[in-house]
Amino acid sequence: MSENGNEPTPLNEIGEFGLIDRLTQKIELKNSSTILGVGDDAALIKNEKALTVVSTDLLVEGVHFDLLYVPLKHLGYKAVVVNLSDIYSMNATPTQITVSIAVSNRMSVEALEDIYEGINLACEMYGVDLVGGDTTSSLSGTVISITAIGELDEAKAVKRSGAKETDLICVSGDLGAAFAGLQILEREKEVFKEHSTIQPDFSGKDYILERQLKPEARKDLIEYFAKEGIVPTAMIDISDGLSSELIHLAKASEVGVQIYENKIPLDAQTINTCEELNLNPVMAALNGGEDYELLFTVPIEHFEKIKREPLLTIIGHITDQGSGNNMVASGTEALIELKAQGWQH
Amino acid sequence: MSENGNEPTPLNEIGEFGLIDRLTQKIELKNSSTILGVGDDAALIKNEKALTVVSTDLLVEGVHFDLLYVPLKHLGYKAVVVNLSDIYSMNATPTQITVSIAVSNRMSVEALEDIYEGINLACEMYGVDLVGGDTTSSLSGTVISITAIGELDEAKAVKRSGAKETDLICVSGDLGAAFAGLQILEREKEVFKEHSTIQPDFSGKDYILERQLKPEARKDLIEYFAKEGIVPTAMIDISDGLSSELIHLAKASEVGVQIYENKIPLDAQTINTCEELNLNPVMAALNGGEDYELLFTVPIEHFEKIKREPLLTIIGHITDQGSGNNMVASGTEALIELKAQGWQH
Repeated sequence: MSENGNEPTPLNEIGEFGLIDRLTQKIELKNSSTILGVGDDAALIKNEKALTVVSTDLLVEGVHFDLLYVPLKHLGYKAVVVNLSDIYSMNATPTQITVSIAVSNRMSVEALEDIYEGINLACEMYGVDLVGGDTTSSLSGTVISITAIGELDEAKAVKRSGAKETDLICVSGDLGAAFAGLQILEREKEVFKEHSTIQPDFSGKDYILERQLKPEARKDLIEYFAKEGIVPTAMIDISDGLSSELIHLAKASEVGVQIYENKIPLDAQTINTCEELNLNPVMAALNGGEDYELLFTVPIEHFEKIKREPLLTIIGHITDQGSGNNMVASGTEALIELKAQGWQH
Repeated sequence: MSENGNEPTPLNEIGEFGLIDRLTQKIELKNSSTILGVGDDAALIKNEKALTVVSTDLLVEGVHFDLLYVPLKHLGYKAVVVNLSDIYSMNATPTQITVSIAVSNRMSVEALEDIYEGINLACEMYGVDLVGGDTTSSLSGTVISITAIGELDEAKAVKRSGAKETDLICVSGDLGAAFAGLQILEREKEVFKEHSTIQPDFSGKDYILERQLKPEARKDLIEYFAKEGIVPTAMIDISDGLSSELIHLAKASEVGVQIYENKIPLDAQTINTCEELNLNPVMAALNGGEDYELLFTVPIEHFEKIKREPLLTIIGHITDQGSGNNMVASGTEALIELKAQGWQH
């Protein structure tokens, strides 16, 4: 290790095993189901519920994140959160994660520790244990792969495929903010490239920047369902934009969807920022992605209960498959067909 | 897709969802525990035993594999096998995997299908289900991240930490062959770089090349333990070389190890190739890595049983921690201290 505490430590100075020791020394296991964590060939998890839920994601530098404006700690935090969001979208509780990181040799031990600080913070916030992983060098950019493990009672499992005609279509929180935040970061990056002395202008953008840089997963919604005794008929998390997720849900459930443009929940900062940038905020919600809100369907008898919950918005209802996937436009009442976007990084 | 069936299809022509459909269409689920596989936010696994076992690995182009001489199908196969090896080393049975791949845009859909062909073949050979994953683009090299899930009765769990003084130290198969195979591939790569018309000379190297390019995990050993009613006191798979794994096992178990140079199992091709390249075959076994054999300890009462099993070799015994980790040299009987290597890609 470097003698001088202020000098970044090159990765090759510390070696694989020294690095793993340094990155995992702060881990405190929280879940009774974690029998064996980091340090063996595999982790051992005691099954306390009937089902184990598994989800995995890969984040690639230059594709999913830009180290020019994403702080390393936020990167680690977000990498965990996007995986936990997938576990919540099955109506399950995440309990463990594994983390694999390939880092360029240009990165210092301290930089890697910053990523892990964000990872550990997310583990703490969501009550999950880091139980395994792999750290390796990369000849080019940084890649983070996280697998999240969760537990679930069989009767509570919610797939994409259970939506029925007349079910209500609901979303948590508000949409399009992460996309609006990304546009601001990209704009300031362009300014910075040309005039590196100009300070970035982020005033009045705190909410949308936080939505982009430090999103949260909807733990509170799963707790709400448990408290209210509601099991959604279908659920999916909104990672690629509302439109694309609605189409996935409709296809898996063999139904159609009808949503209302004027029901889509938008934050004031999202609306203002989109206006400033000459973007349509509804398009940001439909196609923007990275909101990590939950989109779900429930039988119509839950209407009063859902209506009262400030966290939730009813945006439409399930129709027959032949009717397709449509949005009723504000004002004109015209039907606009929803289109998928998928990955367009 | 390309009109001409012989033209490689660029990845960006097919889109994310088309690609996922194409890569996952051949999946047939084999395990009764797999309730829900690819196609939702997460996979659902029914817990049929008390413990779930989880292991994860990241393979990076240019660090762990070289596409110049590793066929894509073998790459996919090996990426699965190295993860299953970690599950077996807990004395567990692997049941599911998730696969995430970041591919450079230079790679075609067909190339990615070749990787998946190897992945699917490994799934078939080892009876595991591919239940999830992520496919994304990369600005540079290819990265494969696999997480393996297994199941295990609580009484059968084997960690690194259970070895006791006087226990026998045993290994499966033979060691150093994967390293010898890699040296031949590297030699032929250098020849090819200078004279691209010269055909590579691989005669008499089939075994060591297969050990490098298409290793197998020790499913048969776990089955042997179950049949014979043996539960090892400690176990680890040999991915980084015998020496490094012995040191991990000794440290976790708070014991010392003593092995005998003349007991280390070596294949004739490994010995011949090492002589040809002026390498010491014992060093290839100690420090070479990628053998994916299992190193384990058992109480001394199993001596006769283990001795009879052609798959296994007793290479030494556990000592007290103060005696350190040593190898008794052939002929001289001198004690040589074992050193860790770790990652030196």
